[in-house]
Amino acid sequence: MTPKGAATRQRIIEGTSVEVRERGAAATTLDDVCARTSTSKSQIFHYFPGGKEELLLAVAAYEADRVLADQEPYLSSLTSWEAWQNWRDLVVRRYRKLGVHCPLGVLITELGRKTPAAQALTGQLLERWQGQLRAGVTAMQTAGQISPSLDADRIAAWLITAVQGGVAVLLSTGKSDHLEAALDTSLALLRAKPELLHVGASQDPT
Amino acid sequence: MTPKGAATRQRIIEGTSVEVRERGAAATTLDDVCARTSTSKSQIFHYFPGGKEELLLAVAAYEADRVLADQEPYLSSLTSWEAWQNWRDLVVRRYRKLGVHCPLGVLITELGRKTPAAQALTGQLLERWQGQLRAGVTAMQTAGQISPSLDADRIAAWLITAVQGGVAVLLSTGKSDHLEAALDTSLALLRAKPELLHVGASQDPT
Repeated sequence: MTPKGAATRQRIIEGTSVEVRERGAAATTLDDVCARTSTSKSQIFHYFPGGKEELLLAVAAYEADRVLADQEPYLSSLTSWEAWQNWRDLVVRRYRKLGVHCPLGVLITELGRKTPAAQALTGQLLERWQGQLRAGVTAMQTAGQISPSLDADRIAAWLITAVQGGVAVLLSTGKSDHLEAALDTSLALLRAKPELLHVGASQDPT
Repeated sequence: MTPKGAATRQRIIEGTSVEVRERGAAATTLDDVCARTSTSKSQIFHYFPGGKEELLLAVAAYEADRVLADQEPYLSSLTSWEAWQNWRDLVVRRYRKLGVHCPLGVLITELGRKTPAAQALTGQLLERWQGQLRAGVTAMQTAGQISPSLDADRIAAWLITAVQGGVAVLLSTGKSDHLEAALDTSLALLRAKPELLHVGASQDPT
């Protein structure tokens, strides 16, 4: 693809993303996309031979990238508690702003949650996200701020569920209370003097 | 309503629940419901004058009750760490068994996530669920097992997000790893010697 072609393709994706955020994935037509991006239908089919479905999949990949990009510059360098707190604030702000509209969720639902393409996309996003959080936990362990006895990958998985669960409630209620309670409680417990935590205590009989 | 009428209404709701679990809410027709429950269309309209939509709403309320009922006998008496562990095991087992099919989620999606009826239902379920978990946290605080400095309602909200987030991932991936990591980590940190936790540490500068 020429640089000009790549730019046109990207313009179509970004324009479609705006349309989907405004009116939903089901209601967005290729005519809307043409009007918004000043392209013709034949151009759209040139870049997305599969039509609307292929286009929506590309938009979903773009939205998945944005989920992570919107957490920067903190997500990729969670090397101090200050960075973690800034990350928490960014996440809460992002989802508060999106409110009851989750662009990626809308697209995944439209494409079919159980289709291989949608599942691959979600799986990759989770993996990348978890990898970044895991790197942050490992960095804090190296710095002596988080107990080395905690499994960094499981802690990363746990933090992702805090975000996902908080967002799930926000999508129903429109309120960010649960998301904030989840992130604040998780971080507060993680910051508690690590060597004093009885990690794995849930296995012991009481 | 006569006891016999109430029983017929309940039979229609339960039969519809089975249909929805098998084929989804959108694909379930009133004819399917008649066949499954040995009732006539006029009986269905007698109990649900609003037709399919009213019936699906009643099924959603029934599924919401089941979400909580399936967590018993532990949810309503979380007065020991053993009860909490048993509750955790029940929750994981329930959602593992349901797999990528969340009956309540399917119904809420079909009814329209943003409709007042669906939102009221979700709101009530969250409130009741959180109330039960809060009572459990309070009981453990009274027993000296959880620090009294922790806000029981926020801890309850946090535990709900752990379940919701874990289930959200399970619905995408079909795997319960995140749900288990979320519940295990939350309970392990909650069980850590409470007086040694630096609660609210995330507010301090480092």
